[in-house]
Amino acid sequence: MGNFDWELLTELLENRQFRKLRETMADMNEVDIAEFIEEQELEKKVLVYRMLPKELAADVFSFLEVEDQEHIINSITDYELGKIIEDLYVDDAVDMLEELPAIVVKRVLKNAAPDTRALINQFLQYPENSAGSIMTAEYIGLKRNMTVEQAFAYIRENGVDKETIYTCFVTDSKRQLQGVVTVKDLLMNPYHTIIKDIMDENIIYAVTTEDQEEVVEAFNKYDLLCLPVVDHEDRLVGIVTVDDVVEVMEQEATEDFEKMAAMLPSEKPYLKTSVLELAKNRIPWLLLLMFTSLLTGAILVTYENALQVVPLLISFIPMLMDTSGNCGNQSSTMVIRGMAVGDIELRDVVKVAWKELRVGFLCGLVLAAANFARLLLQYPDQILVNLVVVLSLVLTVILAKTIGCTLPMLAKRMNLDPAIMAAPLITTIVDACSLMIYFRLACALLKI
Amino acid sequence: MGNFDWELLTELLENRQFRKLRETMADMNEVDIAEFIEEQELEKKVLVYRMLPKELAADVFSFLEVEDQEHIINSITDYELGKIIEDLYVDDAVDMLEELPAIVVKRVLKNAAPDTRALINQFLQYPENSAGSIMTAEYIGLKRNMTVEQAFAYIRENGVDKETIYTCFVTDSKRQLQGVVTVKDLLMNPYHTIIKDIMDENIIYAVTTEDQEEVVEAFNKYDLLCLPVVDHEDRLVGIVTVDDVVEVMEQEATEDFEKMAAMLPSEKPYLKTSVLELAKNRIPWLLLLMFTSLLTGAILVTYENALQVVPLLISFIPMLMDTSGNCGNQSSTMVIRGMAVGDIELRDVVKVAWKELRVGFLCGLVLAAANFARLLLQYPDQILVNLVVVLSLVLTVILAKTIGCTLPMLAKRMNLDPAIMAAPLITTIVDACSLMIYFRLACALLKI
Repeated sequence: MGNFDWELLTELLENRQFRKLRETMADMNEVDIAEFIEEQELEKKVLVYRMLPKELAADVFSFLEVEDQEHIINSITDYELGKIIEDLYVDDAVDMLEELPAIVVKRVLKNAAPDTRALINQFLQYPENSAGSIMTAEYIGLKRNMTVEQAFAYIRENGVDKETIYTCFVTDSKRQLQGVVTVKDLLMNPYHTIIKDIMDENIIYAVTTEDQEEVVEAFNKYDLLCLPVVDHEDRLVGIVTVDDVVEVMEQEATEDFEKMAAMLPSEKPYLKTSVLELAKNRIPWLLLLMFTSLLTGAILVTYENALQVVPLLISFIPMLMDTSGNCGNQSSTMVIRGMAVGDIELRDVVKVAWKELRVGFLCGLVLAAANFARLLLQYPDQILVNLVVVLSLVLTVILAKTIGCTLPMLAKRMNLDPAIMAAPLITTIVDACSLMIYFRLACALLKI
Repeated sequence: MGNFDWELLTELLENRQFRKLRETMADMNEVDIAEFIEEQELEKKVLVYRMLPKELAADVFSFLEVEDQEHIINSITDYELGKIIEDLYVDDAVDMLEELPAIVVKRVLKNAAPDTRALINQFLQYPENSAGSIMTAEYIGLKRNMTVEQAFAYIRENGVDKETIYTCFVTDSKRQLQGVVTVKDLLMNPYHTIIKDIMDENIIYAVTTEDQEEVVEAFNKYDLLCLPVVDHEDRLVGIVTVDDVVEVMEQEATEDFEKMAAMLPSEKPYLKTSVLELAKNRIPWLLLLMFTSLLTGAILVTYENALQVVPLLISFIPMLMDTSGNCGNQSSTMVIRGMAVGDIELRDVVKVAWKELRVGFLCGLVLAAANFARLLLQYPDQILVNLVVVLSLVLTVILAKTIGCTLPMLAKRMNLDPAIMAAPLITTIVDACSLMIYFRLACALLKI
């Protein structure tokens, strides 16, 4: 994909053919150039960055890692810094400022124009993970009485530094959102058409304080390229574009993966997270689960007597615990993911439980049959023990499936994140249950 | 969000105010209308669908569930069917045809125009999960010698039924892709500019047979709205738009969730998958893991003697097994997800292992300290047993972390899907290891 010539750039840089380097970069994709800069040694990063044609500089800058952004900020003049800030989209500027040390933030804001500074400060105040925190301010605003021709003239004049020009927003004198018109609509209608006659008044929008997950859902449901964001007085304050939503989607999925593996979600990519931070994210759940699983140990101790009488019983404990854990894991994963992507709603709880009950019965039956065959071969004279094992297996599988699917829904019902009711916690719970079932059955059938 | 008036539609439908219903729907979003139709009883679905203004009909149709699409196809005339097929984008048509029964597919193809039929047949042949399988054919193709004015005229004439008009593709007489020009470029340049002077020749593209995951990566990396797809002779055959990519991203994440919970990925949403299918997806891994965990049981039996001598030892088995499983799960999840989103590469294996080793050491230490404090309170006279437990804990946590992070990378190295090396398999493996460590230490320290 693409035709980025890494070696050519490296060669030009090493031979100090700067004019050629500059010309070559001018034709390249800003993402590739950012990647190239990231791979350079510290002092060369600024050298290459300064060589960029000015219309590329801010774009490339926005794709750099925050460490490199900081390094460049610290190496350039206030004037150059001011230029970058003006050219960045507000959302990219805000993303960067949220990660930079306070002293650098101060210098950045000092060099921004007053308007930009006010805007950035406003955007910095939206709560984390809200629609406001992922939106940007650079949109095309039109008026309802403009003609298509006037709209095009306006876009030609003001479109260069807008994040998207393809969806334009029609606002009234109070900045309240009245309609949406796409460039496609503009192109498909004669020049003299009035915007208000072609604008779509059935607007899908978000409010600044809404959660970003709802923004993602709207994009998914309506296949949007761009979503307007209004404040609590219905005034248009920004837009969210699809590229930012794609990023949020990945983040949200990653967070679910982390929570479902009993970790607190981390802010940074794995390799950039320190050992201490990783440990801190993992220890709380490990501690909780460790102490919970001691209860399971206590159950084992209670039935020590049974184990003394029929020592063979012990050899099936790992199998029962692992299998029930795996079964619960399967169900809870299906349900958690199903709820995350909107396939499963809370009102489906009975449908889901009934389904899992039957799936559990089927799985339990097959596993028990396979196990029974093996047991008959290995311990042909221990019919009763074999019976205890397979009966426990069927029962625990059914139980695990039912617990696994209902707990995440219960969590959701209580406004908790369903993802915490995943494998680790479910395993600990069903482990205890499966041992209880196993020993109760053993005591009853083997008359211990 | 949005202003969809469900109750109004229901009322109009119930009172048979069909003209009003038709007018109301004309202003609504096609996704909302599709949802409304889905909620109706069978005979009303077709009734409502037929009432749609014709420019909306195909759009709404493409958002319906395949069952409803089938029902509508079976209820309309060949002429109506032909109209729908012509108005659908090829990718939506192909998605639908892949799910419909053969007899319905036959009727659909029979009623398509010869060109459309040829195109659909071509698209149906691209391998599942390839770039070709998610692309569509409706793009704007320009020629290099056109002026901006001519380009606009062309778009005005041909843009109505294109999936996107915002990115236009410049091809030569052999249909080979030469450049890309956006509507923004067109708007920002004077009418007499020649396309070849403003088109971007540094094109990011995909080949029909490439995996859809690579398409997703390109969209993520370059923040694309649309990606051209060429065949093996570099001829432009289609485009992938960002809305389809968002869908693929969700699918791929769901598949990873399923694989990581020891299930074969399912094709359909949970509630639409039958009990039998769900069981079939889950049983193979459950069987494999069940038999593997019997090995762990065998280890327990080997050390039955130790358990007879110091019965207390048994009470810590669930805690050790659960904790090591959880630790392995945490590491493998971080690594699998990190590789999926491109944060971790195979060449980082040493960095990752070294990191996990240290994280494991920290986690092990904290868990052991917490446990030791508790053990001292509960069994103050069993210092040696307590020592065995905490030493085993530290060692198994470190081991679990190391195994958990290396196995997924090993899988990737062997061109397997890293997601199979997730919690369930890792748990089974580290369970066995942790019991070995525990009993070895117990035998050594307690002199059994």
